[in-house]
Amino acid sequence: MSEKDAGNSRGLRVDHIAIAVKNLDESLKFYKDQFGLEVIDIEVVEEQGVRVAKLDVGNTHIELLEPLSDDTPVGKFIAQRGPGLHHICLGVNNIECELNKLKANSTKLIDETPRIGAGGARIAFVHPKATNGVLMELSEWPEGTSGAPD
Amino acid sequence: MSEKDAGNSRGLRVDHIAIAVKNLDESLKFYKDQFGLEVIDIEVVEEQGVRVAKLDVGNTHIELLEPLSDDTPVGKFIAQRGPGLHHICLGVNNIECELNKLKANSTKLIDETPRIGAGGARIAFVHPKATNGVLMELSEWPEGTSGAPD
Repeated sequence: MSEKDAGNSRGLRVDHIAIAVKNLDESLKFYKDQFGLEVIDIEVVEEQGVRVAKLDVGNTHIELLEPLSDDTPVGKFIAQRGPGLHHICLGVNNIECELNKLKANSTKLIDETPRIGAGGARIAFVHPKATNGVLMELSEWPEGTSGAPD
Repeated sequence: MSEKDAGNSRGLRVDHIAIAVKNLDESLKFYKDQFGLEVIDIEVVEEQGVRVAKLDVGNTHIELLEPLSDDTPVGKFIAQRGPGLHHICLGVNNIECELNKLKANSTKLIDETPRIGAGGARIAFVHPKATNGVLMELSEWPEGTSGAPD
């Protein structure tokens, strides 16, 4: 099996790119006015302390993350580094398999087991120390619901 | 025409996500070993002062950027912020149309006119001040060559 086949059988794709913003409505206006992007959904995810707008970009999604308060992870990120690219999310077919593979290679994880994220996906974060500074989320969507477009 | 139709007729998609890395070979090993991602191409882009590895992630690409020296834009980015997410690139059908639309709205640009980037695409960067801290590239591929998968 080639590396490409191996990757494809695991369903790897970019589910979304997440951007930390100070003001969701102002940022939405930019992406809608400049690029005509469609808003798929706006949702408050209390557990992660954010209001999230999901935008359709054709082959994947952009998620704009507005912190619910300054003492949330995204609020602290903005205080330290300013608004900007926050994380990328890789969609996978089987999140347990991927986490087990990462653990077997001693990869540092933020979540050892999946939890429920925006839209009901099962998610887990890999630690930026393991990925050269990239906060990376993995997500598995319940069958019949939609992650990133194929 | 709906916003979605407007976006789609303009060919908007995420062409790639670019990650600044200190050591390209070590980072490549992580993405290949952990996720089985295939390397499409490795290229030195002297004009941008980087060695670039393009990885296939199914619905789009990840580009790993290793600076050729400390005094390049990516070298300075790593010195200031550490390695990590560097920019996103939106693929478009007509880069002049997109730049004209941005200019008509007084959007701050790094490149007022397209230049040639990695792989021969015509590219231009939008200034992070216009995008809430996101360095955003636009790219138009010559007909018959491949940008991000559809």
